[in-house]
Amino acid sequence: MFEAAELGRKIKKTVYNEEIEGLRADLLQCQQELLDCDFSVVLLISGVDGAGKGEMVNQLHEWMDPRYLETTAFDAPTEEERERPHFWRYWRALPPKGKIGIHFSSWYSDPIAQRLNGQITQSQHEAYLSRVNTLEKMLVDDGTLLIKMWLHLGKKHYKQRIRHLASDPKTAWRVSKKNLDNIKVFDEFRSVAEDTLRQTSTGHAPWIIVEGYDPRYRSLTVGRLLRDMVRKRMEVDPKTLTSPTVDWTAKKDKTTLLDFVDLSQALKKKEYKEQLLHYQARLNVLARKAHKQKLSTVMALEGWDAAGKGGMIRRIIHALDSRHYRVIPVAAPTDEEKARHYLWRFWRHLQRAGHMTIFDRTWYGRVLVERIEGYARTDEWIRAYQEINEFEEELTEHGIVLMKYWLHIDKNEQLARFKAREQISYKQHKITDEDYRNRERWDDYAQAVADMVERTSTQVAPWHIIEGNDKRYARVRALQLLCDRLEQVV
Amino acid sequence: MFEAAELGRKIKKTVYNEEIEGLRADLLQCQQELLDCDFSVVLLISGVDGAGKGEMVNQLHEWMDPRYLETTAFDAPTEEERERPHFWRYWRALPPKGKIGIHFSSWYSDPIAQRLNGQITQSQHEAYLSRVNTLEKMLVDDGTLLIKMWLHLGKKHYKQRIRHLASDPKTAWRVSKKNLDNIKVFDEFRSVAEDTLRQTSTGHAPWIIVEGYDPRYRSLTVGRLLRDMVRKRMEVDPKTLTSPTVDWTAKKDKTTLLDFVDLSQALKKKEYKEQLLHYQARLNVLARKAHKQKLSTVMALEGWDAAGKGGMIRRIIHALDSRHYRVIPVAAPTDEEKARHYLWRFWRHLQRAGHMTIFDRTWYGRVLVERIEGYARTDEWIRAYQEINEFEEELTEHGIVLMKYWLHIDKNEQLARFKAREQISYKQHKITDEDYRNRERWDDYAQAVADMVERTSTQVAPWHIIEGNDKRYARVRALQLLCDRLEQVV
Repeated sequence: MFEAAELGRKIKKTVYNEEIEGLRADLLQCQQELLDCDFSVVLLISGVDGAGKGEMVNQLHEWMDPRYLETTAFDAPTEEERERPHFWRYWRALPPKGKIGIHFSSWYSDPIAQRLNGQITQSQHEAYLSRVNTLEKMLVDDGTLLIKMWLHLGKKHYKQRIRHLASDPKTAWRVSKKNLDNIKVFDEFRSVAEDTLRQTSTGHAPWIIVEGYDPRYRSLTVGRLLRDMVRKRMEVDPKTLTSPTVDWTAKKDKTTLLDFVDLSQALKKKEYKEQLLHYQARLNVLARKAHKQKLSTVMALEGWDAAGKGGMIRRIIHALDSRHYRVIPVAAPTDEEKARHYLWRFWRHLQRAGHMTIFDRTWYGRVLVERIEGYARTDEWIRAYQEINEFEEELTEHGIVLMKYWLHIDKNEQLARFKAREQISYKQHKITDEDYRNRERWDDYAQAVADMVERTSTQVAPWHIIEGNDKRYARVRALQLLCDRLEQVV
Repeated sequence: MFEAAELGRKIKKTVYNEEIEGLRADLLQCQQELLDCDFSVVLLISGVDGAGKGEMVNQLHEWMDPRYLETTAFDAPTEEERERPHFWRYWRALPPKGKIGIHFSSWYSDPIAQRLNGQITQSQHEAYLSRVNTLEKMLVDDGTLLIKMWLHLGKKHYKQRIRHLASDPKTAWRVSKKNLDNIKVFDEFRSVAEDTLRQTSTGHAPWIIVEGYDPRYRSLTVGRLLRDMVRKRMEVDPKTLTSPTVDWTAKKDKTTLLDFVDLSQALKKKEYKEQLLHYQARLNVLARKAHKQKLSTVMALEGWDAAGKGGMIRRIIHALDSRHYRVIPVAAPTDEEKARHYLWRFWRHLQRAGHMTIFDRTWYGRVLVERIEGYARTDEWIRAYQEINEFEEELTEHGIVLMKYWLHIDKNEQLARFKAREQISYKQHKITDEDYRNRERWDDYAQAVADMVERTSTQVAPWHIIEGNDKRYARVRALQLLCDRLEQVV
């Protein structure tokens, strides 16, 4: 795989000088046009130490307009980063549409280093890479142009380079003990790197290996590639980027699992009061323990309009310390959110270790309202099931307790609640024409909910359908499920 | 000051029950109306341990719609917080317009604790409080409703409360050694607290002391106050919030300091090349040292359109490692930015320790384009000078090196550059009708620049006016000034 990049390729100064001015103008022009485009560019720069990664990135900053370039270098994770799932810091650094983000030491540097040090096994390495593939697919499917460049050097040239740097007092500071040690393990490194590149060189995000021996060759090659790939991407119709989707929804029969929910469940007032107190006390103890153990919880609340999410949230937080949770209302995205992948706005709200994040409506909007109202294209919402499963797996793998509730009521109960709300002054704002419009599409939503549960109720993150016609029953049930789950882990 | 809050005030259960439902409805209504208002509410909850601060905040969350409440509890600062100026984490947590943010252990807890422990002297304490007053004034002037509640307990009741908690196994966990120690230093604490409140109880943000002894009294009082203050604020015309401003600009004569800038300064090509290389090499060494020492630099670049900021930035970053700086282009604010104080969007971009942040246009937009185009009211841009000085003092006090450049050219030179840009395809986008419109207001801008320099060139953050008619001279000069400054500190 690397043989072609170990030849010592060079470019003459005259050739370089001839081309360089035009290339810089092209790159600036590309950036300018990109500002009006509906996608972002993420450029990952990885490779062998001493192959000129740093110089290359500096070079790009000099050539291009640094105002529309955002370079993020990922060193050892900070305290705030360690308290969130692994990919959080990469999500956080994603550029908005119209800009180019350079990721330096991206999600590839950890697995290669850890594999070399023996901190992870080969199968752990592979598992991680398959997660990386999914992440990259998500970004590409969303329209991101993902360019992965590996700057390479053969062992001979690597040794030469290190010795050359070490021999000049002006550059000797750049040679660390690690560089010298790397010479010894070079063959092993090369083999782990090849393994990594092979497993992650996918159709949607192939690796490009660039020989790093000669600065002119390297600069010109990377510059040209970047220009040509951005230009090519600009000509592409976004709809053709994703593989054609089989729309399986037509095949469905009319009965969904929601028809089997027993909505007659109810609690008498006295029973309710007792049980509410009981579970709130239990939750209080469990939540305190969880906070102490730095165990985080994410609650994803979905349900019909007027199903009682608000009241349920109030009963839950009653048992919690307000310093240890945050309720995130999910409404229309802000423009900073619109400029990125739809999951970005949920990633950004993940709280620090030991906290509970309660999402009032969630990422499932993608397969509910966005599907029904046509805000997302068919291929977009269909692939969202897998993207969501992946997202949730990342949360749970980090040790986060994830609870997903669908708060269910029937159509008559909804109407009764709409009418009741219209009678109470401070609840009137909760009822709008939109609610009635959504109501008309009840069957479509029911189908979407059924599909959602079928496709995203996983072992690590099962859906709980809460029988909600009786508010008392629903609240107690929600508390009980949460307590039971926390009890298993704290 | 605290005497009135040490009486053991109580409210009867019947009175409480009678009022509470109406109060809750009112609070919900307030929140709903607030969503459409052009201001945010920041509620600071401070006070004596055991006076029910936590319970109070939990209570508010239960009563109100938790989706529009954001509580932030400030514990010991995280690594990312410690690497930024002190107030960074408080700015970061400010709620957007339309929402209520509760700040728990706000900017008041550190100074009180540190004063008690003897970590800071009385004069340091006072200096900090005067900074707090300025911050609060800034927020209030921007329209924020700032409510500061001190929940109080007298010594007798404090002792009672701690002993009571300790005696019940269900609550004993809440009593820490610190609580017991606090009994011993209660008088001292009370005196430092009184000192703090007295110095920060200003006309724009007075303290409200609430006796915390009886939960019903405390809850009802805080709830009522919150409702009444939000309601009252809604009736106020924002323009009347700030003190009338003397517009001193009319008094100015036509000659400004810009007329005394010697624009004939120039460098020959050979000289330029030599000096450029010289200073870039010097900057490279200095920047590496600064990074190692975790010393941050903020560069604030302003100048006429076409003055050559872009080219100057490229010459500077040529000497830097792209992992260690970020260029922030300042254009129209995003909607998340518009919903907050105008300085918020600059606070959010401060990089971690050891990094350079280059602002391409800055917070000075407030007293330049916003002043000239009328985007800011007169009282807003006039008070901005002081706000900006304060902001910059916070940066420099944290140890950040702050460099402010005004890149100056004359009117003829600008026209020549506009014409030249129109000839080069990838530079055409840089010239728009707006540039010509701005040009027509040259004299207004010149006056604004002169005022800006006069009012914000401080010892800690002086302005450098760079003679820019000759690009070569300007670039070398910018590098030289930066090197000279860094040399003093690394």
